[in-house]
Amino acid sequence: MRFKIIKQDKKSRARVGEISVAHGKIDTPGFVAVGTQASVKALSPRELKEIGLQVFFANTYHLYLRPGVDVIEKLGGVHNFMSWNGPVMTDSGGFQIFSLGLGQHILRKKGDRVKITLNNTNKGVTGKKLAEISEEGVEFKSHIDGSKHILTPEKSMEIQSILGADILMAFDDCTPYPCDYEYAKSSMDRTHRWAVRSLDAHKKEQKEKSKRKNRQKQNLYGVVQGSVYKELRKKSAQFIESLNTPGVAIGGVSVGESKKEMYKVLDWVVPNLSEEKPRHLLGVGEIDDIFEAIEKGVDTLDCVIPTRWGRNGTVLVHPQTAKNENSVNRYRFIITNAKYIKDSLPVDPLCRCFVCQNFSRAYMNHLYRANEILGIRLGTYHNLYFMVNLMKQIRKSIKNDQFQNLKKEWM
Amino acid sequence: MRFKIIKQDKKSRARVGEISVAHGKIDTPGFVAVGTQASVKALSPRELKEIGLQVFFANTYHLYLRPGVDVIEKLGGVHNFMSWNGPVMTDSGGFQIFSLGLGQHILRKKGDRVKITLNNTNKGVTGKKLAEISEEGVEFKSHIDGSKHILTPEKSMEIQSILGADILMAFDDCTPYPCDYEYAKSSMDRTHRWAVRSLDAHKKEQKEKSKRKNRQKQNLYGVVQGSVYKELRKKSAQFIESLNTPGVAIGGVSVGESKKEMYKVLDWVVPNLSEEKPRHLLGVGEIDDIFEAIEKGVDTLDCVIPTRWGRNGTVLVHPQTAKNENSVNRYRFIITNAKYIKDSLPVDPLCRCFVCQNFSRAYMNHLYRANEILGIRLGTYHNLYFMVNLMKQIRKSIKNDQFQNLKKEWM
Repeated sequence: MRFKIIKQDKKSRARVGEISVAHGKIDTPGFVAVGTQASVKALSPRELKEIGLQVFFANTYHLYLRPGVDVIEKLGGVHNFMSWNGPVMTDSGGFQIFSLGLGQHILRKKGDRVKITLNNTNKGVTGKKLAEISEEGVEFKSHIDGSKHILTPEKSMEIQSILGADILMAFDDCTPYPCDYEYAKSSMDRTHRWAVRSLDAHKKEQKEKSKRKNRQKQNLYGVVQGSVYKELRKKSAQFIESLNTPGVAIGGVSVGESKKEMYKVLDWVVPNLSEEKPRHLLGVGEIDDIFEAIEKGVDTLDCVIPTRWGRNGTVLVHPQTAKNENSVNRYRFIITNAKYIKDSLPVDPLCRCFVCQNFSRAYMNHLYRANEILGIRLGTYHNLYFMVNLMKQIRKSIKNDQFQNLKKEWM
Repeated sequence: MRFKIIKQDKKSRARVGEISVAHGKIDTPGFVAVGTQASVKALSPRELKEIGLQVFFANTYHLYLRPGVDVIEKLGGVHNFMSWNGPVMTDSGGFQIFSLGLGQHILRKKGDRVKITLNNTNKGVTGKKLAEISEEGVEFKSHIDGSKHILTPEKSMEIQSILGADILMAFDDCTPYPCDYEYAKSSMDRTHRWAVRSLDAHKKEQKEKSKRKNRQKQNLYGVVQGSVYKELRKKSAQFIESLNTPGVAIGGVSVGESKKEMYKVLDWVVPNLSEEKPRHLLGVGEIDDIFEAIEKGVDTLDCVIPTRWGRNGTVLVHPQTAKNENSVNRYRFIITNAKYIKDSLPVDPLCRCFVCQNFSRAYMNHLYRANEILGIRLGTYHNLYFMVNLMKQIRKSIKNDQFQNLKKEWM
């Protein structure tokens, strides 16, 4: 993996760069879509290309449970499996185990083991123990059929190696929020020990792979944790940096803390990371978060927003468009609203995507109301194009020393 | 509308032709997809073009209730509304009223009025009277919100005029099955009276339209009824033929009678229709029905099968492919079956569609099992391509005097 910095902003940590991996390049700052089950929801790989999306996240936890790594291995890895020849990232599986109960966990510490119980209804596992963390790893029950599994740093690396993504994540202990200092510290320490184990296991996997033909190089990112504590975040950044992985991810910032806290975390972490490596922010974010994160030195970030909102009829628009609408905020409105039943305008008249060039709000409104799949398709397509295009604009603005002006226009 | 016969099969009534309407041409024999709510389910208009689909049915009943004709009128008709510039057909709305309860109706004749009550659960209108037929038309309750409406031949023509399709259907009384001779006759007579009223109303609508600019010509098809009675079918064909509409549709053949009965109906009807006009068979069919219907002189037919099956994981394949699979019959198998979890073959190795060129059965199996929308998209795309391609093969075979051989290969 190569990371080339093309332009450094003079007034902030924002920068334009290019990550090169086996399946192609990723322009940074870049948006990483989410394709949990080896499908960016509602879109085909061909549409992703057309949109200009360069990379997406597939989720190790989900693919491990369904269809299973044996299936993806037989089909030649996640790229072949889904007919996508561009870069792919996989997470470690850890976050998914923690977050599947909508993040509403009850933690019970019991000696060295932490038990996670869901306090909300989640497909037949209501109130039952869902996961248990030990030094070895995490024992959990499948959200699909309740079957028992254990995920460890070594197991996560083995699975990610078979999935075959270009960029992998170290297996971390995603600290919940809120969380006291003592627990945050022990969780971070565990993340560091697991990072070392992840790296060792990854090296072995790569060595094994190099013996086989047609196997492309994979790149492991270490993951920084430390909750909302300055000292811990700083320490974690320095520790993960010391492992010298080709990139670093910042985790645990989308678990419920405020935007302000998240921005502070970035101020503590980024200065302790090497300038030469790409930094990925996990699970962020909304439009304002994106501007802030990039300004604070983030190179890539992933988020379910464009795809999830696409499914429920929330469409992303330029603030100039939003101000004329019944908008939720400066960046979006809900197209199923009665206001749009006869609206012949496209979703965003300022947008040049295939959807905005061909379809009206009235038609989209109808499709969503009539439960037509095409509505979800068009909404998702537009939202993802919107995000990819925003990133293009941001890159251009940094190159032209106009980042602050673009930020002002949007914020 | 023009209809040109290019080739007449020597050994049967099968023929190759071309229908030309305002929005383009329809090669016959041709498959008409179903796009009930102004969307061929799960597919975009761009994909329909790529598949080679030339025409689809939109449903007057559904569009009248949602989004409403005022919306579609404001958006410039159904073509503009959904961004499709090819030919469109609309039905009269009558069949939908009869069929919404899955066709399981209880008829109660009461003087001149016929009441239709559903005997199955249908979204909050269980057991309630759903429609009532009188000489004037059909009073019915919306399946969406239970609101009361009346559809008459004149109203149907007014709605279809606003929707703006290229080919319209006369408002008919779709005779249920089974049905005694006496009721079938009175139902057919009503259909004939309604056909005359439809034609009158249509002429007025067209005259009105011709005064306005940019209004394209629409073509009304009369609809033949008469249940499974030879005398009635013959009489109905002759009567509808005498109205001299540019095309004729054959109705009431997909309401529950056997395939054999359906084929007999075609033998009674077609010889009583003009050779110079296109014949449409409403709501048919499966692969074997298609071969039989074309052999008996049908030019176009519509069916929900490729789209509906696409949504539930049933894929259409050539008999050559089906014989190696856990197939339902000679033309299809269920891709969600465990047999396909690791199957790296495409859906149909003999198919050249985008889906079969790019994706494996294993990936499709996974997408359906994981409830990914892309599964439905790919299944529907393949099934519709399959149908369109079958029609191409059939046209070619008729041109080359090979229709009987092709039929043998498939049946």
